[in-house]
Amino acid sequence: MPSSDHMIVRQIEFVDTDMAGIMHFSNYYRMMEAAETSFFRGLGLPLFEECEGRVIGWPRVRSRCDYHAPLRFNDIVEVHLFVKEIRTQALTFFFRFRKRRPDGSREAVARGELTTVCATLDPATQAIVTVPVPQAVRDRIAVAPKSAYRV
Amino acid sequence: MPSSDHMIVRQIEFVDTDMAGIMHFSNYYRMMEAAETSFFRGLGLPLFEECEGRVIGWPRVRSRCDYHAPLRFNDIVEVHLFVKEIRTQALTFFFRFRKRRPDGSREAVARGELTTVCATLDPATQAIVTVPVPQAVRDRIAVAPKSAYRV
Amino acid sequence: MPSSDHMIVRQIEFVDTDMAGIMHFSNYYRMMEAAETSFFRGLGLPLFEECEGRVIGWPRVRSRCDYHAPLRFNDIVEVHLFVKEIRTQALTFFFRFRKRRPDGSREAVARGELTTVCATLDPATQAIVTVPVPQAVRDRIAVAPKSAYRV
Amino acid sequence: MPSSDHMIVRQIEFVDTDMAGIMHFSNYYRMMEAAETSFFRGLGLPLFEECEGRVIGWPRVRSRCDYHAPLRFNDIVEVHLFVKEIRTQALTFFFRFRKRRPDGSREAVARGELTTVCATLDPATQAIVTVPVPQAVRDRIAVAPKSAYRV
Repeated sequence: MPSSDHMIVRQIEFVDTDMAGIMHFSNYYRMMEAAETSFFRGLGLPLFEECEGRVIGWPRVRSRCDYHAPLRFNDIVEVHLFVKEIRTQALTFFFRFRKRRPDGSREAVARGELTTVCATLDPATQAIVTVPVPQAVRDRIAVAPKSAYRV
Repeated sequence: MPSSDHMIVRQIEFVDTDMAGIMHFSNYYRMMEAAETSFFRGLGLPLFEECEGRVIGWPRVRSRCDYHAPLRFNDIVEVHLFVKEIRTQALTFFFRFRKRRPDGSREAVARGELTTVCATLDPATQAIVTVPVPQAVRDRIAVAPKSAYRV
Repeated sequence: MPSSDHMIVRQIEFVDTDMAGIMHFSNYYRMMEAAETSFFRGLGLPLFEECEGRVIGWPRVRSRCDYHAPLRFNDIVEVHLFVKEIRTQALTFFFRFRKRRPDGSREAVARGELTTVCATLDPATQAIVTVPVPQAVRDRIAVAPKSAYRV
Repeated sequence: MPSSDHMIVRQIEFVDTDMAGIMHFSNYYRMMEAAETSFFRGLGLPLFEECEGRVIGWPRVRSRCDYHAPLRFNDIVEVHLFVKEIRTQALTFFFRFRKRRPDGSREAVARGELTTVCATLDPATQAIVTVPVPQAVRDRIAVAPKSAYRV
C-alpha cells in the first residue's frame, strides 16, 4: 500500500530563534527536509545512496513557504508532509506546519512546498544529470488527495 | 534619489555545503536576507530598531526560491536584490543569483523572492502587529522596472 | 532528588552534513545546547525566562569539543549531559556523544564541555550582568561523580 | 616566505543572532573555519581537493572557544588566525576575535582554537585515514610567535 503523507513532531530549539524572538524563517526549510527524510526512511527508500545500480540524490529545483504566525523557543510543531505531485523525474511535496497549543488544539503557522528532481552523476562527465524517479520509489508513494491538505 | 536594487557578492563557505557536495538549498535564503540587510544598511534604513517612535521589524510572510544550477565550495556568487513591490504594509524583493565563472562571464544559478511585512509589538498585548511601512523607508526605495530583472 | 545527568537521542539530518560527507563539527555544539535545553525543561528550570523576579539567561563563556570519529547522515547518536561543576554564578556541563551501532553497541564519537554564566539585564544600563545561579536551579541539580563520565 | 597569520573581517548577520539578542555561540566556529578557508585559499593550499596524488581533507579533532563579550547584529568583527602548532599530521590554529568599535578602537570579544588532522580516504577500505601534512603545506606556513597573539 503506497504512502501519501507523513508527519514528524519537533520542538523549537534555542539556536533556531533570532533576535526578534521567533524561529528564523530559513529553518522551516530544514524542517521540511527532515520530514522528507523521515518519510523516505520509513518507507525504506533511497535519499542519497545506491538505487537500481547507481547512486541517486534529490537536488531541489523549487522551494516555497508561507508564514502565518511565528514559532517560538520550546513551541511544539507538527510538520505534515503530503505527496502533491509525481512526475517522470520530479516529486513535489506539500507541508503543513501546525503548532500544538497547550489546550491540545492546533494552530496553522505555515505551509510550504518542495520540488525535487531525481539525479545521478554522469560517470563520464561527473555532471549532475536528472534521471527518472526509480520504480522502487514509485511503488511506495502515491499522490495525496488535495482534500487532505487544502482546507 | 530612491534605490531600487542592490548587489552583494559572497563566496560559498565549506559549512554551507552538504554531503551532495553542493550548497544546501536553505542557505540561499540566508543570502537573500544578507542582501536585504546590506540594502537597508546602505540606505540608513531600520531593520530591527526604533523608527518613527517605535521598534519595528520585518517578519517574513512568504519566501520562494527556484534553483537552476548548483553552487559549490569556493564559488563566487552575486546576489542581486530588486524591489519588486511596495504595498501599504509589505515589501517584496526579487533576487537573482549569478555565479561568476573563471572567464568573467556570469551563470544564472537561482532566483528568489521574499515578502516581508512591517511590524511592531503592541505595547498593551505584546503581540506582533503589522503597521504601515514607515515614510522614511518609502522615501528611500522605489520599485525596480521588471525589465531590470526579468530577461 | 536533584539531577546530575540527562540524555537525548538524535538522528543526523542531511543539512548537518558537509561536502566531506560527515556532520560539520559546529553542529556538535547545537546538540550540546539541545541536551541542556531538554535537561532544564525536564526539571522545570528557566532557560530564558523570568525567575525569582527577573529575566535570566545563560550566556556561554567557554565551549569545547574533542572529536574521535565522524557522524554521518542517518546515524543515531546519544548526547549524554553530566553536571560537571556548579559555581556561584556559573555551571559547567560535560557531554558524551556515542553512536548507536546496528548491533546495539555504542561507539564513543566525541566529548564536549559548555560553561555558562547566569545573567540578567541591568534595568538601569541594559547591560548583561552576571548574577548568582538561582536557588531554584541549585535545588534541582547536583554535580555528577566523575566516575560517571570518565572511563 | 611562509605565512603564520591571516585576518578576515565579518559583519554579524541577522540569522546569526538568537532570541537573547546576541550572536549564537556556535557561529564563532563557522567564523574560525571561514578564516582558515581564506588563509589556505590565499596561499593556494588545498582544503578539500587533490594534493600530491590524493584527495585530502582536514577533519577537526578539537575545537575550543572562550567568550568575553557578546557580538550583536551589524557588529563588525576581525577574526585573526595564527598558526599555533604544526605537527606531523596535525595543525593547530589560534583565533582572536576583536570587535571594531565606532571610535576605531578594538574590543577583544573571544578567542578560539581549532586542531585539524590531514586525512585521506583509504582506497581499499574507504575509511578516513590520517596522513602526514603535505610538503606543499609545510612550505607555505610557519608557526606564529606566541607574542603575536598572547598579550
